[in-house]
Amino acid sequence: MKAKVINLIEKFGLFGEHWSPRVIAELNDYQVKLAKLEGEFVWHKHDDTDELFFVVTGRLTLEFRDHSSTLDEGELLVVPKGVEHRPRAESECQVLIIEPRGVRNTGDAADSPAAPNDVWV
Amino acid sequence: MKAKVINLIEKFGLFGEHWSPRVIAELNDYQVKLAKLEGEFVWHKHDDTDELFFVVTGRLTLEFRDHSSTLDEGELLVVPKGVEHRPRAESECQVLIIEPRGVRNTGDAADSPAAPNDVWV
Repeated sequence: MKAKVINLIEKFGLFGEHWSPRVIAELNDYQVKLAKLEGEFVWHKHDDTDELFFVVTGRLTLEFRDHSSTLDEGELLVVPKGVEHRPRAESECQVLIIEPRGVRNTGDAADSPAAPNDVWV
Repeated sequence: MKAKVINLIEKFGLFGEHWSPRVIAELNDYQVKLAKLEGEFVWHKHDDTDELFFVVTGRLTLEFRDHSSTLDEGELLVVPKGVEHRPRAESECQVLIIEPRGVRNTGDAADSPAAPNDVWV
């Protein structure tokens, strides 16, 4: 076995699409993903899991039904399971996301097509 | 509910001890921890879980029985379950660690006292 050293900036350089998470590592049955976000996502929730957002570059706003939280570089937030949220970024931000394998990125928002899972970079 | 925005640098400013992980967040039954590492740890493994190391500042070497991996700022590595490893840092490095709640930081190294778990910062 030889576990790989993964450089986040290098990995971010390998894709450009927004709202299209790429897997960079697995930790047991969890996946570490990178995503580039710009604009406004859909309101959704994940009934079965928390979701961790860590901002690598830029600024991310997480809207909740009763308030908003803004994360700058080097900041993280865990969205609790079952809590509706809407990610938003005025200009591109690069985030690291951790959640169990197989989570639908649009959660319970049935009308919104989900990004494909298990796309590695 | 109001999920907290957690600033890594701010949290690192709140403790100084080496090899003494502090919990900053939970993601389901996983914990996100910060640790300051300097010097050489003990050889150990975790038979039941992978362990994620992400270097926030400084440089971390992870020795394995057959090679070493060096992580700089912005780099991560997942140590697979059951694989012996020894973290080492020539000068202080600040790392983020993710693993399930309740893991003993010295793993199977029975002679080495483990740091207490569930110490939040």
